[in-house]
Amino acid sequence: MARALVLEEKGRLSLRDFQLPQAVGPGDVRVGIRTVGICGSDVHYYTHGKIGPFVVREPMILGHEAAGVVLETGKDVRHLKVGDRVCMEPGIPDPTSRASKLGIYNVDPAVTFWATPPIHGCLTPEVVHPAAFTYRLPDNVSFAEGAMVEPFAIGMQSALRARIQPGDIGIVTGAGPIGMMTALAALAGGCAKVYVADLAQPKLDIIGRYDGVETINIRQQPAAAAIAEATDGWGADVVFECSGAAPAILGLPALARPGGAIVLVGMPVDPVPMDIVGLQAKELRVETVFRYANIYDRAIALIGAGKVDLKPLISATLAFDDSVAAFDRAVEARDTDVKIQIDMPA
Amino acid sequence: MARALVLEEKGRLSLRDFQLPQAVGPGDVRVGIRTVGICGSDVHYYTHGKIGPFVVREPMILGHEAAGVVLETGKDVRHLKVGDRVCMEPGIPDPTSRASKLGIYNVDPAVTFWATPPIHGCLTPEVVHPAAFTYRLPDNVSFAEGAMVEPFAIGMQSALRARIQPGDIGIVTGAGPIGMMTALAALAGGCAKVYVADLAQPKLDIIGRYDGVETINIRQQPAAAAIAEATDGWGADVVFECSGAAPAILGLPALARPGGAIVLVGMPVDPVPMDIVGLQAKELRVETVFRYANIYDRAIALIGAGKVDLKPLISATLAFDDSVAAFDRAVEARDTDVKIQIDMPA
Amino acid sequence: MARALVLEEKGRLSLRDFQLPQAVGPGDVRVGIRTVGICGSDVHYYTHGKIGPFVVREPMILGHEAAGVVLETGKDVRHLKVGDRVCMEPGIPDPTSRASKLGIYNVDPAVTFWATPPIHGCLTPEVVHPAAFTYRLPDNVSFAEGAMVEPFAIGMQSALRARIQPGDIGIVTGAGPIGMMTALAALAGGCAKVYVADLAQPKLDIIGRYDGVETINIRQQPAAAAIAEATDGWGADVVFECSGAAPAILGLPALARPGGAIVLVGMPVDPVPMDIVGLQAKELRVETVFRYANIYDRAIALIGAGKVDLKPLISATLAFDDSVAAFDRAVEARDTDVKIQIDMPA
Amino acid sequence: MARALVLEEKGRLSLRDFQLPQAVGPGDVRVGIRTVGICGSDVHYYTHGKIGPFVVREPMILGHEAAGVVLETGKDVRHLKVGDRVCMEPGIPDPTSRASKLGIYNVDPAVTFWATPPIHGCLTPEVVHPAAFTYRLPDNVSFAEGAMVEPFAIGMQSALRARIQPGDIGIVTGAGPIGMMTALAALAGGCAKVYVADLAQPKLDIIGRYDGVETINIRQQPAAAAIAEATDGWGADVVFECSGAAPAILGLPALARPGGAIVLVGMPVDPVPMDIVGLQAKELRVETVFRYANIYDRAIALIGAGKVDLKPLISATLAFDDSVAAFDRAVEARDTDVKIQIDMPA
Repeated sequence: MARALVLEEKGRLSLRDFQLPQAVGPGDVRVGIRTVGICGSDVHYYTHGKIGPFVVREPMILGHEAAGVVLETGKDVRHLKVGDRVCMEPGIPDPTSRASKLGIYNVDPAVTFWATPPIHGCLTPEVVHPAAFTYRLPDNVSFAEGAMVEPFAIGMQSALRARIQPGDIGIVTGAGPIGMMTALAALAGGCAKVYVADLAQPKLDIIGRYDGVETINIRQQPAAAAIAEATDGWGADVVFECSGAAPAILGLPALARPGGAIVLVGMPVDPVPMDIVGLQAKELRVETVFRYANIYDRAIALIGAGKVDLKPLISATLAFDDSVAAFDRAVEARDTDVKIQIDMPA
Repeated sequence: MARALVLEEKGRLSLRDFQLPQAVGPGDVRVGIRTVGICGSDVHYYTHGKIGPFVVREPMILGHEAAGVVLETGKDVRHLKVGDRVCMEPGIPDPTSRASKLGIYNVDPAVTFWATPPIHGCLTPEVVHPAAFTYRLPDNVSFAEGAMVEPFAIGMQSALRARIQPGDIGIVTGAGPIGMMTALAALAGGCAKVYVADLAQPKLDIIGRYDGVETINIRQQPAAAAIAEATDGWGADVVFECSGAAPAILGLPALARPGGAIVLVGMPVDPVPMDIVGLQAKELRVETVFRYANIYDRAIALIGAGKVDLKPLISATLAFDDSVAAFDRAVEARDTDVKIQIDMPA
Repeated sequence: MARALVLEEKGRLSLRDFQLPQAVGPGDVRVGIRTVGICGSDVHYYTHGKIGPFVVREPMILGHEAAGVVLETGKDVRHLKVGDRVCMEPGIPDPTSRASKLGIYNVDPAVTFWATPPIHGCLTPEVVHPAAFTYRLPDNVSFAEGAMVEPFAIGMQSALRARIQPGDIGIVTGAGPIGMMTALAALAGGCAKVYVADLAQPKLDIIGRYDGVETINIRQQPAAAAIAEATDGWGADVVFECSGAAPAILGLPALARPGGAIVLVGMPVDPVPMDIVGLQAKELRVETVFRYANIYDRAIALIGAGKVDLKPLISATLAFDDSVAAFDRAVEARDTDVKIQIDMPA
Repeated sequence: MARALVLEEKGRLSLRDFQLPQAVGPGDVRVGIRTVGICGSDVHYYTHGKIGPFVVREPMILGHEAAGVVLETGKDVRHLKVGDRVCMEPGIPDPTSRASKLGIYNVDPAVTFWATPPIHGCLTPEVVHPAAFTYRLPDNVSFAEGAMVEPFAIGMQSALRARIQPGDIGIVTGAGPIGMMTALAALAGGCAKVYVADLAQPKLDIIGRYDGVETINIRQQPAAAAIAEATDGWGADVVFECSGAAPAILGLPALARPGGAIVLVGMPVDPVPMDIVGLQAKELRVETVFRYANIYDRAIALIGAGKVDLKPLISATLAFDDSVAAFDRAVEARDTDVKIQIDMPA
């Protein structure tokens, strides 16, 4: 029995004792959790009790953005040892599935994912996890940064799908946490500049502090006009749609250069109209993103090398005892909050 | 002065004398036209007087699918000589534009294209054309087949954009002429099998006669069900949307395998809803197609090698004197007509 | 205990009883072997007792090209059932390794491979194998063809690495079994034509019977001259080096077009000189091939669809009882033998 | 008549009056040259009178790394105007050639290139150049930096060919000017870290001052050992061979991870042995580089955005009047000199 932050049902959280299986298999590690970030999906389960087909029917531990320390290793584990500081991929595929064999284990239909019903998350002092999806943190990467690897991995997956070429001009529509992560991944991934468009100035102010980021407040100027001006009318090489907003999606063709790429990161709940002829007239490529695969190593490498600094995006850190308060603050969705994290007792 | 099939205005064609400039520049060839195919866009200009922003404001010669014989060569032309049997790319870019330098001259905003106002087409005995966009036909490829290279090139462009891997399973939604061309290009381009879905049985019967093509009459079975059955529930590797129909476009995610590709070939007039979350859940890549670039060589190679036989898709051949009748038959859009061609006097 | 073809030591084969473990794990199948092809590597172990660092130190069962029937399935196996006709990938990776997670399980350093010391092969009536690397054969694909999937998979891997575009012109240097497989995979994979160059006319005669294949006897004309002639001096789009011969390797740049691709399939024992400046002057891409990954499905799809016919490459079929004679014939390496297979009793 | 630095013959330079054609065609610009960098190839023509098949048979103006100011524009030029600060691509292809149409104009056999016999270079106050290969410099990029775009473009081409993925680990063998440019391009292009290996410590000291670069003095530790240590034995994702040295080339497979990429940038004069089986065992991809195409825009974008700082690589700047002395210093090839530039009078 251990304490855990449990979503009892829609709208009701409690920090209480909970029984989780703790058997460490030959390929597993047991990890002491030190920091957990709160994701929009955690918040959405709290406020809505479901996301699409995933419905919370029984009490479920929340949390899937975590870093910690290895406490025990299974007998076949080679690349990790007790005491290693680590972060974990929350999705676990069937490693012999057709998708996994292709290297796209993120779209394996059999994947299980922390804090996605009926799978428990990691807001509890200890978890057992496959070593193959547990990654060592360099000494100069803190637990707080380690817990940022998960959301950053989505930005990284977006940057990989874009197939950025060195010196590309990028634009991100939507300055939410994922939009910010994507902008930073795109810059680290080779873009010369990344424009970030949103209508919330406080968000733009946060991301605009990074070198290489230029912001567009779309209340003042349409994104397409700003990009045309910045690129002599040619358009951006890569466009990352991170808002999920219908008008942004309809307007995507105007942002891209002929032969450019669009990456759909934001998830609009319902089908939205797309300007297919507009996409075709520039022969644009449209990529989509679902979580990430084979990203953690490279995300950690960039953070460890100092090419990406995620610390400014950590807006507040609360103690595990204050988890419920942390979630309630996250529900507020303040324009000045990017990521709220929870510190676990060592 | 030479005879030409002239679209005088919306709904009115005439076969009459017309004055075209005939100066052969240093990089040009003069070509005697032998066969011209009628394209849906020719027909659309005839019946509607415009396509999107392109409006017929002055009499315009129709036709852009042509094969013929070189009659004269400019002084800098090396790879062609008088008497060569050839076919021509109807789109001419600015070769020093930014898009052309990138190799994507099809999306050069400066491109001019036969029978796209205000540019005249080729339904006239002689045209002057840049040698760089004029391609020699092998001896075993007839003028009729040569005039099929243009529509086949769209299918080929689609197959290239798909990045087919040998042994892929493909599906084409929409069995119009471009859907058929795409199916054949996909098969020649490495697909093990291509399923073609439509609701018009006569069209399915035509394309279904090819080895490697399987047909799905969607009045009898949804395409998604047929593909699931054929692939053990995995989905097609590459999906070619050639119908432009909203329900087909909305249903695309169900046809593809995780990590698969969708190529949008059909052109819906207005924006249509797309299931973005459905695309993301399988992390699908969506490619779009605009005409073609660097395709004629390889299209001719496949036809010349006998790997693609387009002759069964030539439904009728009329004499130049009967051009107006040919167009009127094309307007009928019979389910059993794929391509109607016009023979020019030698 | 079961009979097996055992390489007792270099140069000594015996058909005798052998004890193999037969426990069927949850993800395994037990397969009754029906046909086994003899590969050059099997023969090399027989004649030399080793290949590079792999040395036969204890008696080892030979054979890794096999098809058979499922006799038993582990409790977690879903996609196969008793009675299914199947063929097997002989290499088994660690599915959670870094390479496997990337989808390139063929280069997982932990891979074990049939008939590569100290791993036993499959020339024995029954084997236990992971279901994830066991593939169902369509009804119209015989066991003999099923046992050809393994060598054909190397040709397929080569074709995939080449990234053939529809209508490419290919050339294969070296008309051994792998060269032939590669030529057929390249044709099925989208090449308009494939030229095969060798100095053994009987081999060229065999492969030259296929539609789309043209042969070059390099005793009569250098391959570069033949390709230049066939392509107006432009060169082949994709070049498959399957001879492993130093002069062929040195001469590769002359075969390719500017911006073309070379795939190194043949394995020269020692380092060989390459004309790096020649490769650079055309900015060629050089791919290498190591076995295959994620190929069996697509290889079987092409064979099942009738796009690839491997039956003409089966030169002789001997009974299991005559295995040693089969190997002795393979040692002869007759110019008219491509593949020799061994039939196992049902 | 204008002054020019003329290579009269092998070993003899003079700064003297020279007659160059100055007609500005419709697509041309006339540029006043402000800064010219000295390249190893300029020096090689000076000391050897030839490079491979290119032999200096008549007096030739040297120099091909240049920046300047637009003095006059042809009537069709749209994107440039008098007074624009610019740099120029020294290679001019036939824009309608087969290679140019494919977007790989760098390998167009018809390309002419400054200071490559018999084409004159740009070490003279004014040149006429196609506007399509002339690029505007942002206000914050100096002429000195503009003249660095040419050598940096080779590093950029190498980084593009590598298809770097964000967070890759790179290694460059050879710390000459091109090796340094490649390291910086790889970092800007997405590498988390780039290791640079050489045996000249002064060169390593220069490049080692950049963030993200780690140096390996191969007199102290073999590059393979250093990389293995840095990557837990996995290897580098991308390897850039910039030394042209035979031992480095032979040892390439040991540097790369399974499935990694090698880019051959250095140009060994003669064929050199490559370990093909070593490449195959990891299924490495080998790319080659020949100058660059479609790179200037993106190189300038990175410099203008401050992501790449080339100023520390400019070791000395001499006046045009001292051009011969500048070349004589370049001949010395001091370990502490990276790039020597010549300032032209305004």
